[in-house]
Amino acid sequence: MIIKQSWIDYINSLQNNICAALEQTDGKAKFIEDAWIREEGGGGKTRVIQNGNVFEKAGVNTSLVYGKVTDLMRSQLSISGDSWFACGLSLVIHPLNPFIPTVHCNYRMFELYNEDGEVTDRWFGGGTDLTPYYLFEEDAKHFHQTYKNVCDEFDESFYSTFKKECDNYFVNTHRNNERRGIGGIFYDHQRPNEKYNADFWMSFGKACGDAFIRSYIPIVEKRKSIAYAEKEKHWQEIRRGRYTEFNLLHDKGTVFGLKTNGRTESILMSLPPTVRFEYNYQPEAGSEEDKLVQVCLHPGEWVD
Amino acid sequence: MIIKQSWIDYINSLQNNICAALEQTDGKAKFIEDAWIREEGGGGKTRVIQNGNVFEKAGVNTSLVYGKVTDLMRSQLSISGDSWFACGLSLVIHPLNPFIPTVHCNYRMFELYNEDGEVTDRWFGGGTDLTPYYLFEEDAKHFHQTYKNVCDEFDESFYSTFKKECDNYFVNTHRNNERRGIGGIFYDHQRPNEKYNADFWMSFGKACGDAFIRSYIPIVEKRKSIAYAEKEKHWQEIRRGRYTEFNLLHDKGTVFGLKTNGRTESILMSLPPTVRFEYNYQPEAGSEEDKLVQVCLHPGEWVD
Repeated sequence: MIIKQSWIDYINSLQNNICAALEQTDGKAKFIEDAWIREEGGGGKTRVIQNGNVFEKAGVNTSLVYGKVTDLMRSQLSISGDSWFACGLSLVIHPLNPFIPTVHCNYRMFELYNEDGEVTDRWFGGGTDLTPYYLFEEDAKHFHQTYKNVCDEFDESFYSTFKKECDNYFVNTHRNNERRGIGGIFYDHQRPNEKYNADFWMSFGKACGDAFIRSYIPIVEKRKSIAYAEKEKHWQEIRRGRYTEFNLLHDKGTVFGLKTNGRTESILMSLPPTVRFEYNYQPEAGSEEDKLVQVCLHPGEWVD
Repeated sequence: MIIKQSWIDYINSLQNNICAALEQTDGKAKFIEDAWIREEGGGGKTRVIQNGNVFEKAGVNTSLVYGKVTDLMRSQLSISGDSWFACGLSLVIHPLNPFIPTVHCNYRMFELYNEDGEVTDRWFGGGTDLTPYYLFEEDAKHFHQTYKNVCDEFDESFYSTFKKECDNYFVNTHRNNERRGIGGIFYDHQRPNEKYNADFWMSFGKACGDAFIRSYIPIVEKRKSIAYAEKEKHWQEIRRGRYTEFNLLHDKGTVFGLKTNGRTESILMSLPPTVRFEYNYQPEAGSEEDKLVQVCLHPGEWVD
C-alpha cells in the first residue's frame, strides 16, 4: 500500500515537472488538460500541446486504472488473478523542427490481487527512447549516456540489458526489422526477487523518470533553431509514417490500452500530427536520410 | 484446376481494365508497375499512381501466392491443411479532391490442399466499399444501387446480407464503432454448397469486379472539378487518419499479408498519402463534416 501510494504521488509530480519544462522550452504553448474517468475504474489526466513554437504535438499523460480481470485480458494479455491495478506516465513529443528528435517515455507499475484483495503479483516497467529524423551522434551519445548513468547507480548490468531490450522492442518487423529510432532503455515485468525488492524497482523507475528532462531538453535546445526546408519536413513526415506503423501494428501499450477500454484519444495522442505514406520511398544511398535508416537497421553503441 | 486458372486470368484482365479506366479519368498519371516475387511461392504485380491530376495515390495490385501452411498460419489465421493458394486483386484509391470519396475493393479466391495436392477446401471472398469525406447522398445511392443490381442477378438475399457484413467489418471498434465509410458489400468464405457451386461463386466475384468501374468512375467525374479549400483538405486528412487506424489496427487482409511474408510496400500502399492526427478533433455539430461522421456512426440504407 505504501509503495502503491508513493508511486502514484511520484507519477503525478513527474507529470507536473515535465510539463513545466516543456512549456518553458517551447516558449509559447501551454498544456491543456483533459481529466477523464474510466467507467470500470480509475481514469487519467491527459495533457496536450498542439502547434507550439517548438512542439507540434506533445502529450504527457498519467493514468491510474483498475478493475476486475476480464476474459479478454486473460486470453489476449495473459493476465490472471481476480483484479488488477496500473498506474503510470506516458509521453510522446513530436517537435516541429525535423532536426529535433521525437521522444517517448513510459513508466508504470502493475499489481494483481486475489479475491481477498491481497497483492499476488506486482511489477514495474518503463523506458525512454529517441526517434531522430536526422542523426546527430553527439545527441545520441548524450541521451544514452544519461540513462547509462542512471542504470549504473542501480546495477552495472542494467544499461546493456535494457538498451538491448529497447532495440528489440521498438521494431517494425514488417520492414526488415528496422527500429523505430535509436532506442534508449526499456524494461518490463521487473518483480521483487531475491536480489532486489519492490522498493528498489520503484526507486529505479523514479530515477529513470527524473532523468527524462536532462536527457531530452538539452537536445531540443541545441537543435531548435536550425533552419530547415521542405525537403527535411518531407522526410520527417515519411519517418512519422514508420512511427505510426509501429504504434498501431506492434505496440503492446497501445493494444493494452484499447483492449482494456482506455480512453482512445489519450492512447492515440502518440500519433504524429502530420504524416506521409508514399509508395516505396527510398532515400538516396549515402544521404543524411539514408544514414538515419542505416542506424535504425543496425543499432549502434552510443556509450563507451 | 479450370476454376483456378479462369480466376487467375480474370484477375489479370480486371487489373488491366481498371488501370486503363483510372488513367483515362486522371488524364495525367500513368501507373508504374512493380512485379515482385515471394520467396516462399508466387508473387504479384503492384501498380501505383502518385500525384496524379485526380488521384493523389492509387494502387491496383494483384497477387498470386501459395506455400506450405505454417504454424503461424495455423495458430493466428486458423488455416489448416498441407498447403495453400490465394489469388486476388486489391485496390485502394485516394483522390486529391476531398469531395471525391476514397474507394477500396478486393476480390480473391483461396484453396487448401492435402499432402497429395488434392483440393480440400476452396472459397471466394471480396467486396467494394466507399469512404467519402463529404456525403453526397446521390453518390452513396448510385454506389450501393450498382452493387445491389449485381447481387440481385445472383440471389435477391445477397445485397442486404453482404451490405450488413460490410457495415460490420469496416469498423473502428476503438472509436465507438464508427465505420470507415458508408460501406458497400463484403463477403467472405463463400464455399460451394448444396445451392451454389464453385462456378457460381466465381461468377459472382467476376460480376462484382466488373461493376467496379461503373460504380466509382461516374462519382469521380461528377466531383473532380468542385473547388475546395484548406478547410476541406484538412478534414480529408483527419478522416484519412481514421482510415489508417482501421487498416493498421483492425484489417484482417493487412495482418494476413504481413504474417504470410507478403510484400510490405504492396500491402501498405493502402495507406493515404498525407494524414493528420490531431488530439480530440471534433467537427462542429450539424456541419457537413459532422453529417459524414453521423452516417459512419449510424449506417444508412441507400437503396429502396
